[in-house]
Amino acid sequence: MKYTHNNYELNMSNLGQEVYLKGWVQKSRNLGGLIFIDLRDRFGITQLMVKPDNQFYGVAEKIRSEYVIEVKGIVSERESKNLNMQTGEIEIDVKELTILSAAETPPMSVSDDTDALEETRLKYRYLDLRRPHMQNFLIQRHKITQSIRSVLVSEGFYELDTPILGKSTPEGARDYLVPSRLYAGHFYALPQSPQIYKQLFMVAGFEKYFQMAKCFRDEDLRADRQPEFTQVDIEASFIDQEDIQGLIERVMKHTFKQVLDVEVQTPFLKMSYQDAMEKYGTDKPDMRYELLINDYKALFSKIDIPLFNDKSYLKGIVLNQGASLTRKQIDKLSDLVKKNHGDALVYVKNVEGVYSGSIHKFMNEADYQTLNLKDQDILFLVPGNNDQALNALGALRVELAHQFNLIDENIYKFLWVTEWPLLEYDEEEKRFYAKHHPFTAPSDVNQLKTNPKDAMAKAYDIVLNGYEIGGGSIRIHNQDVQKLMFETLGLSDEEVKHRFGFFVDALKYGTPPHGGLALGLDRIVMLMTHTSNIKDVIAFPKTQSAKDQMMQAPSDVDQVQLDELHLKIGE
Amino acid sequence: MKYTHNNYELNMSNLGQEVYLKGWVQKSRNLGGLIFIDLRDRFGITQLMVKPDNQFYGVAEKIRSEYVIEVKGIVSERESKNLNMQTGEIEIDVKELTILSAAETPPMSVSDDTDALEETRLKYRYLDLRRPHMQNFLIQRHKITQSIRSVLVSEGFYELDTPILGKSTPEGARDYLVPSRLYAGHFYALPQSPQIYKQLFMVAGFEKYFQMAKCFRDEDLRADRQPEFTQVDIEASFIDQEDIQGLIERVMKHTFKQVLDVEVQTPFLKMSYQDAMEKYGTDKPDMRYELLINDYKALFSKIDIPLFNDKSYLKGIVLNQGASLTRKQIDKLSDLVKKNHGDALVYVKNVEGVYSGSIHKFMNEADYQTLNLKDQDILFLVPGNNDQALNALGALRVELAHQFNLIDENIYKFLWVTEWPLLEYDEEEKRFYAKHHPFTAPSDVNQLKTNPKDAMAKAYDIVLNGYEIGGGSIRIHNQDVQKLMFETLGLSDEEVKHRFGFFVDALKYGTPPHGGLALGLDRIVMLMTHTSNIKDVIAFPKTQSAKDQMMQAPSDVDQVQLDELHLKIGE
Repeated sequence: MKYTHNNYELNMSNLGQEVYLKGWVQKSRNLGGLIFIDLRDRFGITQLMVKPDNQFYGVAEKIRSEYVIEVKGIVSERESKNLNMQTGEIEIDVKELTILSAAETPPMSVSDDTDALEETRLKYRYLDLRRPHMQNFLIQRHKITQSIRSVLVSEGFYELDTPILGKSTPEGARDYLVPSRLYAGHFYALPQSPQIYKQLFMVAGFEKYFQMAKCFRDEDLRADRQPEFTQVDIEASFIDQEDIQGLIERVMKHTFKQVLDVEVQTPFLKMSYQDAMEKYGTDKPDMRYELLINDYKALFSKIDIPLFNDKSYLKGIVLNQGASLTRKQIDKLSDLVKKNHGDALVYVKNVEGVYSGSIHKFMNEADYQTLNLKDQDILFLVPGNNDQALNALGALRVELAHQFNLIDENIYKFLWVTEWPLLEYDEEEKRFYAKHHPFTAPSDVNQLKTNPKDAMAKAYDIVLNGYEIGGGSIRIHNQDVQKLMFETLGLSDEEVKHRFGFFVDALKYGTPPHGGLALGLDRIVMLMTHTSNIKDVIAFPKTQSAKDQMMQAPSDVDQVQLDELHLKIGE
Repeated sequence: MKYTHNNYELNMSNLGQEVYLKGWVQKSRNLGGLIFIDLRDRFGITQLMVKPDNQFYGVAEKIRSEYVIEVKGIVSERESKNLNMQTGEIEIDVKELTILSAAETPPMSVSDDTDALEETRLKYRYLDLRRPHMQNFLIQRHKITQSIRSVLVSEGFYELDTPILGKSTPEGARDYLVPSRLYAGHFYALPQSPQIYKQLFMVAGFEKYFQMAKCFRDEDLRADRQPEFTQVDIEASFIDQEDIQGLIERVMKHTFKQVLDVEVQTPFLKMSYQDAMEKYGTDKPDMRYELLINDYKALFSKIDIPLFNDKSYLKGIVLNQGASLTRKQIDKLSDLVKKNHGDALVYVKNVEGVYSGSIHKFMNEADYQTLNLKDQDILFLVPGNNDQALNALGALRVELAHQFNLIDENIYKFLWVTEWPLLEYDEEEKRFYAKHHPFTAPSDVNQLKTNPKDAMAKAYDIVLNGYEIGGGSIRIHNQDVQKLMFETLGLSDEEVKHRFGFFVDALKYGTPPHGGLALGLDRIVMLMTHTSNIKDVIAFPKTQSAKDQMMQAPSDVDQVQLDELHLKIGE
């Protein structure tokens, strides 16, 4: 390439050099006859200057924002320097200027402070992605991906790919289907994850596998979900939980150092699922702040409060300096608790030794003293009969941390959540579901047989700052245990054979003990770039209704295409 | 991990060491009371030895092929060494032995000399992939992929991913469609290539992009085609053909050195499309041997041979030492020529000065002399009125090279085929098709306007040993030229708007000059591992009829799934 520099690297040490640059015109302005052009590329901006006596002055006058140009010129010292800019001490005294591509006025401003609506930004994604802010998200994504890969490759993992055209196995979320042309009425399914394939790699003896895997779920989308997403899919043989956890810690430590220059503490914190639920009210606790949930059942057992009487659980959170919350603010918190299935929000506060709150009429001074509240403390209680109170307190905890600025946004707190229940019982459908997936190994096979409700799993989630960024488990590698698992999940022999027959078969020819984990790449990039919108870290995302605004997909297709696929559109 | 070594690394320098190994039992045999076990992992094989007085002897007796075991033992010198084996001088004197997983007798032999049918191998892919030969294909694929990536990353390319759920744009091959649940009668399409997306990355200012991209084509499959395949998709801005070619040469040079320790000569040979067709009868000439096609029209113009009289072209190939071909062999070659649309195969041979052949009765001694054939030469001629004769001679050339062992299988000859026609005219449909794709830049826009039939493209294919391993072009970056191109292809304004509207729009807001290339990764791995079956280099391939033999996909789906997708199965 004939270009000598990018637009981020020239400085006073280059004075007098002839350089050849190219890029987009960020803006162009005429100041007293001199034309100044900000030239942008993926690295930064360099200022160009065209004098009135320049033979290319006429060309320079034509230039508008987003024109693509190339210039030859001499690096010169600026008269008025901009020390906030990497190249702010110099400018290019232009000698030659060529327009490579003209530009109409774009439908949105191509700058970080654009006020374009999301709809416009998605429709003109190619312009939105020109904004340095947006470019940075994808460049960081690139760097994060390379860094994760480099650790896995250096540890002997093979990057192997698995089919996108797979088989529909309707356990879990809804599949995207692909009609077959050659077999009328038959369909491929896009993978929700390469789970079965990666276990087959272990059966096949590859021992260490990973993949940056595209996964698909046809679910109604939330703000942080997309119909297709990427997971760092990892599996290894002859390992245990600690091996996988150690590996992931090395991956994360290296990646945060490489990409963000942040030192991550290893080993990560570890907590059982039960502790997480009871102390944080969630299976993905944010460890950047305390605000723990405590048990108040015993304390209140001697106080007669009707609301509490029939509840077997009574848990709460003490917030220091929370007594300043207004009645209105507390009402909002109460709404939050109810939205999260809590029965009610009860509070008690201490302002300079004066206690008040929503159960004031049931409480005397001695009762208050037992609560041990410091001046300006507020205690929130959620009575309840089950996990719903914990869920509500978990949500309340997060909300209070935000309102009271308890979160240091610049730190990264990793946590392993371990010792998960193997199964979840669905009271309505009267059947068990796998808490992770049906290939997760039980901690104790005997317990799965005799008391499945209490069976524990060799499963582990990795949580970062309150977000689940990955989950994994040791898998079942014994055919009989796998059959028992399917049986416990209520699948008939026939269903098992039809859906998973080949996999159960595979287990009987010498399957090594194995396990793995999948990291949510999109989520990790979000957290590392401090954005809360998953669309920011995906080049061409879909809307909440799974639509590509730019391409207008999905779209109608020709009748010929439908005929070839033996399909008719129904109601 | 507690294991100390893999099964490829122990040798005489480890004598006396206590080691901890694991793997699969390749075979087990009892020789005079001693039990010998070949223990296999992804690296190699180590011999274990269990003595009769060992407390684990009973366990060892139970072991069969494909059992998964772990052992502790002492590295000892073998009595009878096998110097063909990396670990052939030592064996492990087993102290402890544990069966991790038993194995039934597998339905196919897990060894490189298996005689299992392809159907069995595909059904039990996880066993087939256990064979060292097959593991090696995927391990090489991994290494090749990493090596290609490392060059691109080091040259400043970003690895960015593009959607799998895209839009159907029925130009080119048949799309795989994905019905939308939220928009009845609407479909996504799986990408045939990320062509438009990668150009939009250039519009968006990323300047250098690549991706290991999954691509999909719902076409009837040939031996070297799969419904999903992987291409190394590359695009860059502000570059010309030479920049892309230089980049790919660096990628290939590095990869062949890294993976095969082969020095590849750069720059690669270059040849125009026209030269390739005229001298080699193909657009992907194998440069490992000569056997060029020559023009015989002038030479025969004075000889009256009825078969040649009405033909405007007369080309042929001289094969040294080819006079030994029998009549029967020549008949077979004649069939090949006809299968490749050649009118007929004519031959003349010189055996010790005696000439003979299929046009003997029209030839006299003086005529023969003009042909300048050496002793034992044979000249093949294919008369014809058009490119069909060249195609036939191209096929003949390849066949002769194989029959006469003219090909050195150990060398790699790269070639750039350049200066392609932009368009192809379809006489039946009376319309132009893009020779590459409709985004390829013409060499001369004016020619596209005035004489599209002769317009040339800024396109280039990369050929290795007679296989096209990639193709690319400089793209159109000007909206008007893109519109002209669509117009020339016979697309109405409305069609253009409906299919490519967003893309034509994108070109008007400052699009840099750009171009790129896509390498066929599967093909490259095939050539580098010397296999001729594309299924060997894909972990879980489909059959010729696009079926997954192992999973039995495509498969039927529940009525509920169809209803949700608003679909009915037709005839």
